[in-house]
Amino acid sequence: MIRFCALCGSATTERVPEDDNRLRAVCNACGHINYVNPKIVAGCLPVWEDGRILLARRAIEPRYGRWTLPAGFMEVNESVAEGAAREALEEANARVEITDLYTVYSIPHISQVYMMFRAKLLDANVSPGSESLEVKLVTEDEIPWDDLAFAMVRLTLQHFIADRKAGTFVTRFGDIRPPER
Amino acid sequence: MIRFCALCGSATTERVPEDDNRLRAVCNACGHINYVNPKIVAGCLPVWEDGRILLARRAIEPRYGRWTLPAGFMEVNESVAEGAAREALEEANARVEITDLYTVYSIPHISQVYMMFRAKLLDANVSPGSESLEVKLVTEDEIPWDDLAFAMVRLTLQHFIADRKAGTFVTRFGDIRPPER
Repeated sequence: MIRFCALCGSATTERVPEDDNRLRAVCNACGHINYVNPKIVAGCLPVWEDGRILLARRAIEPRYGRWTLPAGFMEVNESVAEGAAREALEEANARVEITDLYTVYSIPHISQVYMMFRAKLLDANVSPGSESLEVKLVTEDEIPWDDLAFAMVRLTLQHFIADRKAGTFVTRFGDIRPPER
Repeated sequence: MIRFCALCGSATTERVPEDDNRLRAVCNACGHINYVNPKIVAGCLPVWEDGRILLARRAIEPRYGRWTLPAGFMEVNESVAEGAAREALEEANARVEITDLYTVYSIPHISQVYMMFRAKLLDANVSPGSESLEVKLVTEDEIPWDDLAFAMVRLTLQHFIADRKAGTFVTRFGDIRPPER
């Protein structure tokens, strides 16, 4: 929500600028257009050498207490893969090697794009970061399907298990619409 | 660049908020954290039924007069694929069917992520939109390699030509660092 201009602090008005076709927050004083853009959430699916998958239990809202793959908002001046590796380190003290872009999900109603990579967990010495209650390495049979935090986690894990069985990993993209989230 | 708070219009200060490890523009009055996030550029490589590829010549800076694949900033409340199709329509009056996510390039020094899809051009009735000087369908031999607008255009076209020859299209990701751009 933008009510004031980032450059000069004056009030903005929602209007369609010249040569545009959308409402933008345009500054009443300096004319600066304050754009709002979708956000990227970068994450990964870290796999240990015995095939187990790293999950983290969230210590923050939304979905406090639910299980997730390490992921978080991408920062400026980093690549998506760097962001994904950074989140694994921050949330699970996990050192990973990013190998492939694996799933990309747009969630239009909240203007987020999830970009999840496959990753190699470089050592099994993982522990919860400040945003996690606990972390664990799980076999396929141990995945807490009814207790996952987000649709993108379920979909990414489902694809991974099917692809691993088939012996070929395929990058996928899609949309997540309400009420899935 | 953020100097004033989007919510209340007061001046912000660059400081590291509690429970964070990065400088953010924090409001001196209301405490709101004004985040800056990387931007997504969504685009596509539209192919007509005879195999020719749709290119557009830019009528805007940067790279005025150079050739590009249709692409532009993703908007809120759309999917990446919807954004890619919208840009093809806006820049080249091209109706496309998005088929696969094809290349993803991070450009950390300008905090942009390009997401390019393969697309089927649904009819050959294309024409320049307001941001294009001209549009054309080109064979591989007609691609103006020395006159392309961006590294991501060159890389995406190179991958496409190699993959089409090999008969298999593989989604790729990578980074573009200076001085490539």
